[in-house]
Amino acid sequence: MPRSVLQTSAADRRVHRHRVRVLYGDTDRAQVVHHARYLDYLEGGRLEYLRAHGLDYRDFEERTKVGMPVVEAHLKYRSPARFDDLLDVETWVAVCSRAKIVFESRILRGDDVLVEASITVACVDVIAERIVSVPEEVKRACLA
Amino acid sequence: MPRSVLQTSAADRRVHRHRVRVLYGDTDRAQVVHHARYLDYLEGGRLEYLRAHGLDYRDFEERTKVGMPVVEAHLKYRSPARFDDLLDVETWVAVCSRAKIVFESRILRGDDVLVEASITVACVDVIAERIVSVPEEVKRACLA
Amino acid sequence: MPRSVLQTSAADRRVHRHRVRVLYGDTDRAQVVHHARYLDYLEGGRLEYLRAHGLDYRDFEERTKVGMPVVEAHLKYRSPARFDDLLDVETWVAVCSRAKIVFESRILRGDDVLVEASITVACVDVIAERIVSVPEEVKRACLA
Amino acid sequence: MPRSVLQTSAADRRVHRHRVRVLYGDTDRAQVVHHARYLDYLEGGRLEYLRAHGLDYRDFEERTKVGMPVVEAHLKYRSPARFDDLLDVETWVAVCSRAKIVFESRILRGDDVLVEASITVACVDVIAERIVSVPEEVKRACLA
Repeated sequence: MPRSVLQTSAADRRVHRHRVRVLYGDTDRAQVVHHARYLDYLEGGRLEYLRAHGLDYRDFEERTKVGMPVVEAHLKYRSPARFDDLLDVETWVAVCSRAKIVFESRILRGDDVLVEASITVACVDVIAERIVSVPEEVKRACLA
Repeated sequence: MPRSVLQTSAADRRVHRHRVRVLYGDTDRAQVVHHARYLDYLEGGRLEYLRAHGLDYRDFEERTKVGMPVVEAHLKYRSPARFDDLLDVETWVAVCSRAKIVFESRILRGDDVLVEASITVACVDVIAERIVSVPEEVKRACLA
Repeated sequence: MPRSVLQTSAADRRVHRHRVRVLYGDTDRAQVVHHARYLDYLEGGRLEYLRAHGLDYRDFEERTKVGMPVVEAHLKYRSPARFDDLLDVETWVAVCSRAKIVFESRILRGDDVLVEASITVACVDVIAERIVSVPEEVKRACLA
Repeated sequence: MPRSVLQTSAADRRVHRHRVRVLYGDTDRAQVVHHARYLDYLEGGRLEYLRAHGLDYRDFEERTKVGMPVVEAHLKYRSPARFDDLLDVETWVAVCSRAKIVFESRILRGDDVLVEASITVACVDVIAERIVSVPEEVKRACLA
């Protein structure tokens, strides 16, 4: 099995926990959740992490015209989730620098870790279509 | 079984045929294509219908700032598609008026009709966010 | 505008209300929820309707080998949902016969009805791949 | 910017090229392809790679009851794809051992590399739900 994709531990970080119910349409014919769907669960986890730390991302994006596209995604699938499972998406910030934010996550069913993920986002001026420094209000939410 | 959702017949219309391969991720744990995915196949069919009749939809939307949102969708699922099937999406225009366009479609695997669909789109000024008349260049593509 | 797709009124029925948060990935480049995604919201609504009325659908499907595929879907899109909206999916049973169940739904943002939908499901023996009568325990949940 | 996720070079490998058209529903409100959708494009690329090298994956899975779940996915997003783009998905095998296959891919629009990806799959007996050695016929397709 490949090494962990996580550089930091949930135990050392301010972890946000977000609950997701697996829909029928999230599964594939192998009767487990399709590997692409976890990216949606993780996206919900990051959104709620930011909200819980004072950043309403929709308002931020509309007000500043700065977006936060995913520039790298690394997922390790340890065990499959199934239809109707209630999953916990744990999300924390591993890195928050001028250039990028690295969110790390674990997706669990009860105590079982099903997926580990590292998602790197950058900040982009959506009008000029160029990378910008991570704004202060985003840093505050990530480091709070 | 419910009546057909089609008001017109493929035999009487200029039908465009678009081929789609079913991906693993399109299926669900019932081992058939999930019912929501057919809307994506149909969307591809409408796009290629318009292109084949002289309308490059991306160029149209960017140039005119007019979009064509779906305002009604009616699908009848007769028989399931499966992973790796090669499907034919037949698309034709049933109605093209000042207010709306009704596309009708059949999704087939060989000679078997798996899905029938009627998709109604309106035209919207995406800046002002209000309904507008169907532009002449769209009508030409639909009636050509 | 086309007529309503609803045959019954939420006011006269036992309505189940299910809350959904719109994800970034649910939107498309028109900056609204893509029309196919509502089928997923509706699926979640039906699942929770059944659970609230005593039927654990996953357990039912695994125990009886009877599935409930969608055989017809009719949606009317009145107004777009947007990223991060909190939506209420109202679901009720309009018809429950030996042959089929018709779920009707409204998707609301606050008091605004964004989408109306009628989703017909049949019951299928997933081993024999043939239609069967709606089982008594499903009827009980639908008529309770 | 993070290092490349690729361990091998397309120039040194038997590369399979698969063409994909970006659908409207693949985009999100940032007006670019949503990061999760590329996993679907990559899945199509792997399927066609195997078919081009003599392995009909559906037939293989149904005949042997061995599946090939994704156990690790690593994607680097360099530049966004947009609605209606025609993309080339290049796929090759970087590693094929007893335990796993690592597919590497580049997604291009013309000469521009938009996404690099490394997707690791294992082989699983879907009845017993346990990892098995990569079957010979899969190895032959990967090493041919």
